[in-house]
Parts: sequence; structure tokens; C-alpha cells
Amino acid sequence: MTDQAVTVKALSPTPRSTVRRGKDRAQTDRAALHAVLDAGLICHLAFVADGAPVVIPTGYGRDGDTLYVHGSTGAAHLRALAAGAPVCVNVTLLDGVVYSRAVFHLSVNYRSATIHGQTKALNDRDEKLAALRVITDHLAPGTWDYARDPSRQELAKTAVLALDLTEAAVKIRTGPPIEDPEDLVPELNGTRWAGVLPVHRSWGSPVACPELPSDVDVPEHITGRPV
Amino acid sequence: MTDQAVTVKALSPTPRSTVRRGKDRAQTDRAALHAVLDAGLICHLAFVADGAPVVIPTGYGRDGDTLYVHGSTGAAHLRALAAGAPVCVNVTLLDGVVYSRAVFHLSVNYRSATIHGQTKALNDRDEKLAALRVITDHLAPGTWDYARDPSRQELAKTAVLALDLTEAAVKIRTGPPIEDPEDLVPELNGTRWAGVLPVHRSWGSPVACPELPSDVDVPEHITGRPV
Repeated sequence: MTDQAVTVKALSPTPRSTVRRGKDRAQTDRAALHAVLDAGLICHLAFVADGAPVVIPTGYGRDGDTLYVHGSTGAAHLRALAAGAPVCVNVTLLDGVVYSRAVFHLSVNYRSATIHGQTKALNDRDEKLAALRVITDHLAPGTWDYARDPSRQELAKTAVLALDLTEAAVKIRTGPPIEDPEDLVPELNGTRWAGVLPVHRSWGSPVACPELPSDVDVPEHITGRPV
Repeated sequence: MTDQAVTVKALSPTPRSTVRRGKDRAQTDRAALHAVLDAGLICHLAFVADGAPVVIPTGYGRDGDTLYVHGSTGAAHLRALAAGAPVCVNVTLLDGVVYSRAVFHLSVNYRSATIHGQTKALNDRDEKLAALRVITDHLAPGTWDYARDPSRQELAKTAVLALDLTEAAVKIRTGPPIEDPEDLVPELNGTRWAGVLPVHRSWGSPVACPELPSDVDVPEHITGRPV
């Protein structure tokens, strides 16, 4: 997903978050990072286990310049991450398939944020609860106040990790294909459609749990959830 | 994204692709792996650079039990991967947000495939072209035959990597929330909606490249592209 039309926002000066390709458009805009993270639903979290990379999809939430993830205290990888192993997190939203007149310039429009760092386990009860609220209301806004609070036992079974957003980069591609000038001749340009097929994400109709009494209405934070 | 309702298909006997959590539902079904990979649009590719994990989003394609990815030969990570560094690839499709009566049981419905292995660079021209066709027609079916073929120079600038699907696992969660029996009492179950808010992916209306002559129709492989 490297393309000349990509806007790159390198948000920190470290080598691994300094974008080398397409850096002519590099900017320093933390708001763009926040916007991508807030628009995503799940992230991809990578770590190293026994010398090899592992990547898992997981929920997350953002508060200021901290990203939170959580999981079962029984999961081996969470114990390693709680001990401060290095991680890389990516959130990507696919916005369209970019059809070009040439196979070589087929591309996608997207927003992508990458964060490098080390996670820190939260052990304080209030800190854990605050972070879980952030994670919960990211995946399902309104749920924290609506659903039953976590019990002491549930809280004990949940590991919560914080990742600082300092070392991060954002890449955004928008717009039509970037073509070679020689591909804009009539023989090709006059016969081959080129442009963008947008990708949309939408919510379907809520499906009630079979055990739910029929007189319980779907609450507004679900029926009115913005796309 | 660990949940009791998750269906786990461990497709190989190695420790890292043997799912430890939710393994009561483990199956050995390669068709499920293929279906998830075929339904996704982009993958997340993880590798290790200077001892730390890196994860990037990228296009891909599948042919039989081989996954193909590609990129610029100028990208540093592709040179490392071409030399056989270990990788992990994940493709996840988010199918719904699972609202529970309890914050603790908030979940998501999803299909997720994870592959561990080492990529192999393709150097033979015919092998590269065949793999690029697979990648191209995965992201944009019909494009390989419709658009201009890669030139010799473009092919030389493109690194193509193959990853064997042998060491892989699939996790699939469907259905309503899994609740604690004590949460199904009238005080909670009679007042708190629970169920699934489906997530859908759809195509928008094609947006023509500004330089395209107005008499070039959108071809059927784009207008009729299945969701």
C-alpha cells in the first residue's frame, strides 16, 4: 500500500516511526493519528514470541495520547506484554479500491495508524476501571453506563495494558489513481475505466438475544450509533 | 477477542498455531481458512525488525495453500522478508458488535485467520506474473485481464513473496452474547437490551478518475462486484 498519493504524518523522530517512502508529504499532526484511531473498531497488535512475530486482532480504546488494550490474565501473550515487551499496533480503515489503467498502479485508499512502544500493565483498580470504560465505550459507545459493571472477580481476570502514542505514524491515501503519463493516451485512457470504488462500513439491524424479553427496546445508543 | 462462543480451527499441530483458549471447539478444516482469506481485502503482516515487532497492512491473494504478498523492492522490510525472515499474517473480518447485559461480556463476532511461517521470494518471471495475477484479482477481480500488463521495468521493481498456509489457525465467533446465568434475572434481563449489531461492508458508487473521457463506461467486473 505504497503510493505517491499517500499523505504521511510522522509523529515522532525515531527511525522506526519515520516514514521513508512518500516522506515528501510528511506532516506532524497528532489530530490525524487520533482521528484514525477513533474511527477504527479493532486494532492489530504485534509482539515477538520465541523470536518470531505474532499479530492478533483485538479491541482497544484511546484516551488522550494513550491507547488501551485488554485481555484475559490467562493469555500467555498478555503476561509477556504486561512485563514490558515491545509491541507494534496498527489500525487501518480501508476506504476504497483504486482502479488504474495499469495493473501496476492498482491501489487502495485508506487511513492507517501505526504505533511502536512498550505496553504497561495497569494494576490500580481505579486506573483499570477508567481504561476499561475507554475500551468499552470505543467498541460500543454508551455501554459502560448501560450494562452491568464488572465484578471484583471479573476485574481480577482482566489484564489492562496502556501504550503511549508518542512513537507513531499515520498514512492516508485518498483520491484517484496516479497514472504514468504514457498511460493517458487515447488507446488506453479511452477504453479502460479508472477511478475509485468506495468501501463503506455500516450497521445492520440489531438482532436481539434469544433470551431477551420481547418488551425490552433497543436503546438509543445502539439504534442511533453513528457509522 | 476471546470468547466461549468462538469456533477455533487449528490447522496444524505446531505449538504456536495450536489455539490454547477456546480449544474445546477446535476443528481441522482447511476450507474455513480459505473462506476467511478469500473474504478479506487486506491482511496484516507482522515481522521482526531490530528485535522489535512491526505490523503493516497490505494486499494479498491466495492460490491453493499459498498466500502471496507483494511490494516495492525498495522497501527495506521486503528485502528482509525475501531473505526468509519469520512472519505472521492475520486477516480479520468484523461481523458484529455483541452487546451483553454485562460490560465484561461485551464482545465481537468475527472471522479471523492467522498464518505463521517464512516467506519465500519469487524470482522466476512466470511465477511472479502468476502470483501478481492472484494478488491483483483478489483485491480487484477482473483487473488483470482488463488493465495494462506490467512492463518489464515495473516487474523488476516489484518484489513478490509466497507464504505457505500449512501453519495456520482460524477463529470464528458468531451468535448472541454468552451471559452469566445470574445475569438473566428479570432485574437485569428485563431492562437491558442484549444482542448483536451487525457490521456490513459494502461498495459505494464508482467515482471516475477526473482524466477519464466521459464515454468510458464502468465495466461489469466493477459495477457487478459482489460484496
